[in-house]
Amino acid sequence: MSRLTRFLAPTTVARAHCDIPCGIYDPHEAETAAKTVSKMVELINGLEGDDTAARNKFARCVKVKEEHAEKVKREVQIIWSDYFKPEHLETYPDLHDKVWKLLKLAGKNKQNVDAEAASQLEASVKEFSEIFWATKK
Amino acid sequence: MSRLTRFLAPTTVARAHCDIPCGIYDPHEAETAAKTVSKMVELINGLEGDDTAARNKFARCVKVKEEHAEKVKREVQIIWSDYFKPEHLETYPDLHDKVWKLLKLAGKNKQNVDAEAASQLEASVKEFSEIFWATKK
Amino acid sequence: MSRLTRFLAPTTVARAHCDIPCGIYDPHEAETAAKTVSKMVELINGLEGDDTAARNKFARCVKVKEEHAEKVKREVQIIWSDYFKPEHLETYPDLHDKVWKLLKLAGKNKQNVDAEAASQLEASVKEFSEIFWATKK
Amino acid sequence: MSRLTRFLAPTTVARAHCDIPCGIYDPHEAETAAKTVSKMVELINGLEGDDTAARNKFARCVKVKEEHAEKVKREVQIIWSDYFKPEHLETYPDLHDKVWKLLKLAGKNKQNVDAEAASQLEASVKEFSEIFWATKK
Amino acid sequence: MSRLTRFLAPTTVARAHCDIPCGIYDPHEAETAAKTVSKMVELINGLEGDDTAARNKFARCVKVKEEHAEKVKREVQIIWSDYFKPEHLETYPDLHDKVWKLLKLAGKNKQNVDAEAASQLEASVKEFSEIFWATKK
Amino acid sequence: MSRLTRFLAPTTVARAHCDIPCGIYDPHEAETAAKTVSKMVELINGLEGDDTAARNKFARCVKVKEEHAEKVKREVQIIWSDYFKPEHLETYPDLHDKVWKLLKLAGKNKQNVDAEAASQLEASVKEFSEIFWATKK
Repeated sequence: MSRLTRFLAPTTVARAHCDIPCGIYDPHEAETAAKTVSKMVELINGLEGDDTAARNKFARCVKVKEEHAEKVKREVQIIWSDYFKPEHLETYPDLHDKVWKLLKLAGKNKQNVDAEAASQLEASVKEFSEIFWATKK
Repeated sequence: MSRLTRFLAPTTVARAHCDIPCGIYDPHEAETAAKTVSKMVELINGLEGDDTAARNKFARCVKVKEEHAEKVKREVQIIWSDYFKPEHLETYPDLHDKVWKLLKLAGKNKQNVDAEAASQLEASVKEFSEIFWATKK
Repeated sequence: MSRLTRFLAPTTVARAHCDIPCGIYDPHEAETAAKTVSKMVELINGLEGDDTAARNKFARCVKVKEEHAEKVKREVQIIWSDYFKPEHLETYPDLHDKVWKLLKLAGKNKQNVDAEAASQLEASVKEFSEIFWATKK
Repeated sequence: MSRLTRFLAPTTVARAHCDIPCGIYDPHEAETAAKTVSKMVELINGLEGDDTAARNKFARCVKVKEEHAEKVKREVQIIWSDYFKPEHLETYPDLHDKVWKLLKLAGKNKQNVDAEAASQLEASVKEFSEIFWATKK
Repeated sequence: MSRLTRFLAPTTVARAHCDIPCGIYDPHEAETAAKTVSKMVELINGLEGDDTAARNKFARCVKVKEEHAEKVKREVQIIWSDYFKPEHLETYPDLHDKVWKLLKLAGKNKQNVDAEAASQLEASVKEFSEIFWATKK
Repeated sequence: MSRLTRFLAPTTVARAHCDIPCGIYDPHEAETAAKTVSKMVELINGLEGDDTAARNKFARCVKVKEEHAEKVKREVQIIWSDYFKPEHLETYPDLHDKVWKLLKLAGKNKQNVDAEAASQLEASVKEFSEIFWATKK
């Protein structure tokens, strides 16, 4: 993020994430996690050879892919169930279904090493994030 | 559970819970967790005095209430997102909304010490469980 | 579980699991975890090929096998140490040794991909569960 | 964050956080965690009365404060030890000491309910974040 | 530990703890955890006043007491189930029962703030540790 | 550790580790964790064949190596940030840099299966431990 952009960004925006509730919600972690899934798929597909070093890296990348696909699920579920209110659903009547499909897509990314599925996951989280921010305007 | 009932119960029923997917799903843990939330509310409300022993127990019960309300959320989310398929939604078109409200109710049980809310949570998990088992018939 | 059986089962049975103690004990999770270990062994042994998809699945199944063998250990240890009382040991004088061997068997299932060991683990947990329920009658 | 600002922000910036290394680093989580610590201090200090509801909230806020102060420590340590290279230290020769003091400050926030210390923690994390982003230019 | 003693101690002694098995066992963590439980009881009993600072510290000490009593249980269970072999039981036929009582004592320390129980836990872990080291001679 | 040495060792030495602060610090866990990393590298390099058993063991050893390299990082960071005071830094002015390099070395051990790097990690943790104990004299 450029310095300019970061200075433009207000730092007092409220976010919610801990069910206190504390009002500090932010889909940023879910977006980073989705990017990490993509990166892991890229690293796994770029592995060459089958020696110990390659296998060590493969095992680690699968683990990180798994954890970050899970993180996508958790972060999105938290915002969906804790932040969104009935009035938001009137504006976004298919929010439930979008979330449901997003979670399924995260599961698909656990089960496969699939650049296309990872890309779709990034896009779905981005869309979810945009809906979130639109309700904050 | 009586011994009779337990012997009647088939032990080969498949359940799913780990996103492999392994086909081993079971809402039993969510039900136990909801009961635990209720039990904690009962224990907290039954506490007498304000000495160290009472405060130690209070702190521990709040912690267990928190963890088990969270467990309800996680277990239900897993079955909802991993097990349920589009064809189930045709039969239960309000499943998404039921799950959403159930998760909110779990959050409410974290935020309060409320026997009524705990009882509603048990009922909601039971209803979710019944829908699950109905789709397995 | 059939609907009939489930309606026959009393829902007010107390179980214990959290060291509060809350009186909510239930070996059900240990049984599900043992079944999951078996399922993982079956999935691993059924894997064909050695491409990225197969290796991704292998790594994930080993992880789930590990976690659920650990879960068997934890759940059984909790019931053994928290629920069982000296009077139960009079009726089941070899309970300690059964638990010790069961935990060792869970370790063996971590260390190997062995359908026979997995089957023995399921049987051991089932036996432990039956002892538990017999003391509740 | 305003929509305008968000659209200005490039979305392809690489961040690192998992020791693969994956190149996906981002101090955003540490900043959010520090804000959460502040928010908890504010909520705790705003509590009135001493009934069960107030005590439930107190216990939960302390727990979240603890976890997020710990998260600050972990996130900052990861970026410090995994991302920063010897050449960065030439430009920021007191980085080690800043990090050390920041971690101590996070510990102080666990040990106290202190709005001033929470505010200092937010400022320290912000400064750390600015150093991080300056090295990415 | 004095510098002299530490230099006398051989550093190549094998210990086991991870079910690989890796042969790296060591009851040291259980002993430290038991000492921590004692320390928490001491800190809790030494608390004065009932202001926010005292309550923050109380909540944190209960949490640490809980976690370290749990750590005692886990560390002892691991060594008991993974390290000890049938031949050790011939020499220590009451090992199972000692472990069972030790785990119950750890549970008692969770449920209470009791210096006497904490002292007993330390002694029990020390005795378990001595049995362990005696089998290594 | 020989029985003699263990009896010579005073058992009342204070250690600190939990940010209460409780005064119970001890680099022992970090040392054990570093040894475990070495042992995993040895086990991985000693693996023969490429069947399911070997792959199961490989996956498990990589996981334990990862977790214990992470444990080294966490334990060392805790002592560094919570125990060491400004006066210690006067005596050990390069402590910050030693810790920073130690954490990087732990990361290197995650990323590789490298006996030399594992040996260096053991030596670095031993040196850190010696500094710690020297400040306790």
